[in-house]
Amino acid sequence: MTIGIGLLGLGTVGAGVAGILATPSGRHPLVAELELRRVAVRDLARPRPVELAAALLTTDPETVVDDPAVDIVVEVMGGLEPARSLILRAIAAGKPVVTANKAVIARYGEEIAAAAAEQGVYVLIEAAVGGGIPIIEPLKQSLGANRIQRVSGIINGTTNYILSRMAAEGAAYADVLADAQRLGYAEADPAADVQGGDAADKIAILAGLAYGGSVPRAAIPTEGIDRLDARDVAYAAQLGYVVKLLAVAQAMPSEPESTQLLDVRVHPTLLPKAHPLAGVNGVNNAILVEGDPVGQVMFYGPGAGAGPTASAVVADILNIAGIRQATGSGAKVPLDPLLAAGSWRACRLVDSAVTTHRNYVRLRTSDEAGVIGKIGTCFGEAGVSIQSIVQFETQSAGDAEIVVITHDVCEANFRQALAAIQALAGVQTVAACLRTLKGAGSLS
Amino acid sequence: MTIGIGLLGLGTVGAGVAGILATPSGRHPLVAELELRRVAVRDLARPRPVELAAALLTTDPETVVDDPAVDIVVEVMGGLEPARSLILRAIAAGKPVVTANKAVIARYGEEIAAAAAEQGVYVLIEAAVGGGIPIIEPLKQSLGANRIQRVSGIINGTTNYILSRMAAEGAAYADVLADAQRLGYAEADPAADVQGGDAADKIAILAGLAYGGSVPRAAIPTEGIDRLDARDVAYAAQLGYVVKLLAVAQAMPSEPESTQLLDVRVHPTLLPKAHPLAGVNGVNNAILVEGDPVGQVMFYGPGAGAGPTASAVVADILNIAGIRQATGSGAKVPLDPLLAAGSWRACRLVDSAVTTHRNYVRLRTSDEAGVIGKIGTCFGEAGVSIQSIVQFETQSAGDAEIVVITHDVCEANFRQALAAIQALAGVQTVAACLRTLKGAGSLS
Repeated sequence: MTIGIGLLGLGTVGAGVAGILATPSGRHPLVAELELRRVAVRDLARPRPVELAAALLTTDPETVVDDPAVDIVVEVMGGLEPARSLILRAIAAGKPVVTANKAVIARYGEEIAAAAAEQGVYVLIEAAVGGGIPIIEPLKQSLGANRIQRVSGIINGTTNYILSRMAAEGAAYADVLADAQRLGYAEADPAADVQGGDAADKIAILAGLAYGGSVPRAAIPTEGIDRLDARDVAYAAQLGYVVKLLAVAQAMPSEPESTQLLDVRVHPTLLPKAHPLAGVNGVNNAILVEGDPVGQVMFYGPGAGAGPTASAVVADILNIAGIRQATGSGAKVPLDPLLAAGSWRACRLVDSAVTTHRNYVRLRTSDEAGVIGKIGTCFGEAGVSIQSIVQFETQSAGDAEIVVITHDVCEANFRQALAAIQALAGVQTVAACLRTLKGAGSLS
Repeated sequence: MTIGIGLLGLGTVGAGVAGILATPSGRHPLVAELELRRVAVRDLARPRPVELAAALLTTDPETVVDDPAVDIVVEVMGGLEPARSLILRAIAAGKPVVTANKAVIARYGEEIAAAAAEQGVYVLIEAAVGGGIPIIEPLKQSLGANRIQRVSGIINGTTNYILSRMAAEGAAYADVLADAQRLGYAEADPAADVQGGDAADKIAILAGLAYGGSVPRAAIPTEGIDRLDARDVAYAAQLGYVVKLLAVAQAMPSEPESTQLLDVRVHPTLLPKAHPLAGVNGVNNAILVEGDPVGQVMFYGPGAGAGPTASAVVADILNIAGIRQATGSGAKVPLDPLLAAGSWRACRLVDSAVTTHRNYVRLRTSDEAGVIGKIGTCFGEAGVSIQSIVQFETQSAGDAEIVVITHDVCEANFRQALAAIQALAGVQTVAACLRTLKGAGSLS
């Protein structure tokens, strides 16, 4: 039984998908039963890396969705619209959808899931997070026995590439970004990557699956790497840490149990060098899932690229093809609740003032006796316990740089201490403030 | 719709499963629909870590399989028999099976799969490899678009614990083994772990899934760590490697395409310190899958233990429960081919004489001029190209130890060179011979 595939978009990922479908030999035998029947492109005349019959191509994506020969709609065009409308149109037509579009899913996931549940179709999104890394299906199908405590990950390849090079070369952010753009690792407009928005989209999706409820994307505190100073990367290294753009979703104690309170956030974070995520370099991604009773499991691999992402898209198509063999493809067949991954509780974001965490703070001070004592006193008076205070040499005479790493402290107390420190006579500025995970912390 | 679970075995893993089923809150809502209805134990009187109603327990496992209230049979008793017969009995009764029993699946997988296909029931085995790490389902459901080039892994926790301690402490194998036994990380009879049999069981299973055909378990070349000398661990470290018990299944060029030729093996292997698997320590496991087009993806986590293994067992139960909601549970419902993972091609093991690989060789020689030259000549005459030859200091006067690391060379040529070297006047013995992965290789 051949299954008709309609492709919306024939960019890097779309061409990768078409390439896999055209060369089934050596892959799972179900691949040979998938047939590309219609492809929406922006420009018919543009040269493409895959050869496709001209009759397959159209510039009207709606005709792809509506084509009765198309059984599964694959959306790899990106962007919010018309992607969202086309996904909803496919669902309304009772056609399952595979999409790699994290922006649409992070923002309209609830609307799309409701429509899919109503129509009884699957919307699968493995390629939306972590490129080729299987993470969506494992969260849905392999970890359901667990109470998930935390999902944390390096889930943006562009920023990880930049951070890896900053750490290896001691280079400045702007220089590495320019080079990454030249090499194609960063887009001409890098905002979504470097400001953390892409990672926030992805952690919203992972948290929604891990905790069984939609997470308000717009409310996720997000800080990128675009204001990160090479100096902090270097100081972190001297203290035994690497700086990574970490996306985290953590369960908080929740009452009542039907609502899960979550601390979800994206920011540059100091990881102790022995942390499982600390060795993830370049454009690779990794996601660490911590649950009871599984403990820590980690998924690692290429976070982007045509091949890896197409691998994930075709995996989703295969899953839909596979379950159709089991259920038939009639209208309103019941869904497998694991594969469909509907919501089963409400998720709310915690007020960040009440969260506790470790912090790295870099202060620029005048180089005079007693400053460290005054800073220590400010932290102490606010109830902020300190792991280490280290003074680093600077090149400008009369100035000093002091790096403080705190223990796990309440955010509100920490902010109060910072305000007091900023008002100190000898303190010129709070030059940097980064989250930190436990471990390391003294000069090695 | 509550689903009745019958448990065969209430040891560590069985108790872990019972514990999860008894505390569904905070886990996937499907867990609450699973009900433990019958449990086979060896001894009714033995105290257990979980409290179960006495009426659930029986010493007759067949009554668990036959109980009409049992919808899914979970085999966690271990051993070959009666586990195999009970699994087949459940299949014959049309009941899906979840098992953590790698020994049974590695040896009788083909028989069990044939019976399951005939009856149209699922036999799921996530817990059989990698403890809590999702690896079976990702191989079945997330990587089907790929031509798998290689699956390699650290898939035995006991040996990895021993090797990690040998490396960290410079300790001898026998001493660490004794300590591991005292601490419960190694069994009283450690043969299956330390001789590599357990890892061979598991790589047979992974290869069967990755390549879509049954792999002859008995034919897998298997070498354990029981004859590993602490000296080689130390020399490897000086050359930039760590020694791990690696299980590998690699695709070889195959004609005709319907038969996949594989190089499957288990042996202590030198990994360059930068290799993704090199940092996997203690009882953790990790599996690296390399495919086209996905590239390298790695799965990491706790390879054993009650909690992780129970997490994997319950994941399988949930998958069966999930697909039953989609298909109903009537007799002879068609199977999802991805979840069922039937064979789709024949796999044959390659003749190891024609394989190529890198080797680490330690030679004990007399400390006289010209020995290195003669050794180099022997390798050269056999067409074995060498990456490095290093002489290490020994404590006994007059003796020397020479370590050779070869490039990728044909096994037959390599054996021929070794025979010639053994016959050299200055060479006392070939003290060790280990496989090596590319990278590192000179004194650091």
